[in-house]
Amino acid sequence: MASDHTAKAFDDDLQELNRLVAEMGGLAERQIVDSVDALIRRDVALGKRVVAADLDIDKLQHLIEERAVLTIARRQPMAVDLREIVSSMRVATDLERIGDLSKNIGKRVAALDSDFHPLKLIRGLEHMTDLVQSQVKSVLDAYAAHDLPAAMTVWKGDEEVDAICTSLFRELLTYMMEDPRNIGFCIHLMFCAKNIERIGDHATNIAETVFYMIEGQQMLDQRPKGDMTNFATAASGS
Amino acid sequence: MASDHTAKAFDDDLQELNRLVAEMGGLAERQIVDSVDALIRRDVALGKRVVAADLDIDKLQHLIEERAVLTIARRQPMAVDLREIVSSMRVATDLERIGDLSKNIGKRVAALDSDFHPLKLIRGLEHMTDLVQSQVKSVLDAYAAHDLPAAMTVWKGDEEVDAICTSLFRELLTYMMEDPRNIGFCIHLMFCAKNIERIGDHATNIAETVFYMIEGQQMLDQRPKGDMTNFATAASGS
Repeated sequence: MASDHTAKAFDDDLQELNRLVAEMGGLAERQIVDSVDALIRRDVALGKRVVAADLDIDKLQHLIEERAVLTIARRQPMAVDLREIVSSMRVATDLERIGDLSKNIGKRVAALDSDFHPLKLIRGLEHMTDLVQSQVKSVLDAYAAHDLPAAMTVWKGDEEVDAICTSLFRELLTYMMEDPRNIGFCIHLMFCAKNIERIGDHATNIAETVFYMIEGQQMLDQRPKGDMTNFATAASGS
Repeated sequence: MASDHTAKAFDDDLQELNRLVAEMGGLAERQIVDSVDALIRRDVALGKRVVAADLDIDKLQHLIEERAVLTIARRQPMAVDLREIVSSMRVATDLERIGDLSKNIGKRVAALDSDFHPLKLIRGLEHMTDLVQSQVKSVLDAYAAHDLPAAMTVWKGDEEVDAICTSLFRELLTYMMEDPRNIGFCIHLMFCAKNIERIGDHATNIAETVFYMIEGQQMLDQRPKGDMTNFATAASGS
């Protein structure tokens, strides 16, 4: 930085950016929980509130991008300072996607018209959601604290989310085979489960951003990724 | 710009960024076509090539982001110049997502183990893919040419994609109800169709970026969005 004045101005900008990312993260976490709550309790009004609240998340993303770009243009940060700013934009992009995925779950609540509601399925969905929400929370904490080991723990934990999702898919498939009247409902739940799984993917993206911010390079390892595509083969036994 | 020298340097940077975005766009378009080709022809090797090629798209996104940020820091562009750079980053983000969605389709090819292959379904999927690919091509052309009316045509055309997707879903649902042995296969195709529909959403995002780049503000209109969530209610007749 050219002077103390510039350094101070940069620090203020960065602090404000971090505050905005934390605010956006809080909103996104709440959307995850609310959307699945709405789904499980068939709370159509809450589902609609989730859909409406997504607009606030989108606005925050644009605000973060705008501030980040202005900071880069005005302060011309280098090295780690520049990476901090770029990272805030990247995290905002992932949080926006998490918001979208929650909105998609919220939209489906109104479409669920069946009384079919097996407890085991609901438990599985709740368990998966708890896990994913705690992944998102942990990785945002790791980002705020510049804690690389904590971010890497989240990164590795995504495999468990994928495993639960695959087991949910197999169960849903069984219900669909048993009675065609369950098919519509089960498909909705499959898409919801897939959305939650993809929220978990965004938590791992954020973990990769923490790595980039701290280490100054992209992560080269491929993420340990449970392969979901073979659920049908396995479950249909054909 | 402070001087002719700076203006020239900025123009060179911008030109290079536009070239990279065009390259990335070409790759993404090809991934869409290849992934659906692989799916329709059950070409497992091609599916694997699509998965592998996604890495090139990811690398291009990082390169574009890096160049864009360096350009902002070095040249301190203002107004429309700054928006051009920010837009290149946004388009790269959407293209990266398009690549991911194509990769997801490519991954499913190996999992298709049924001989069930109704021609009407395949035609529907091909039609939807043609439409989406031409949307992506048109919007990238509109972006390169700064052609706002052309971008808005793409933006409005997304409704048709959603309509085809909903009709495909209904048909798939019918096949699933008819014979439980079709369920696994049909679910794969549903996720593929959904991925193609979401590629269309990213084409409309790019159209919104063209609006922002030219008009200097975010689009406020909500996109005309076909509601997909009620397919099951309608098709199951309950």
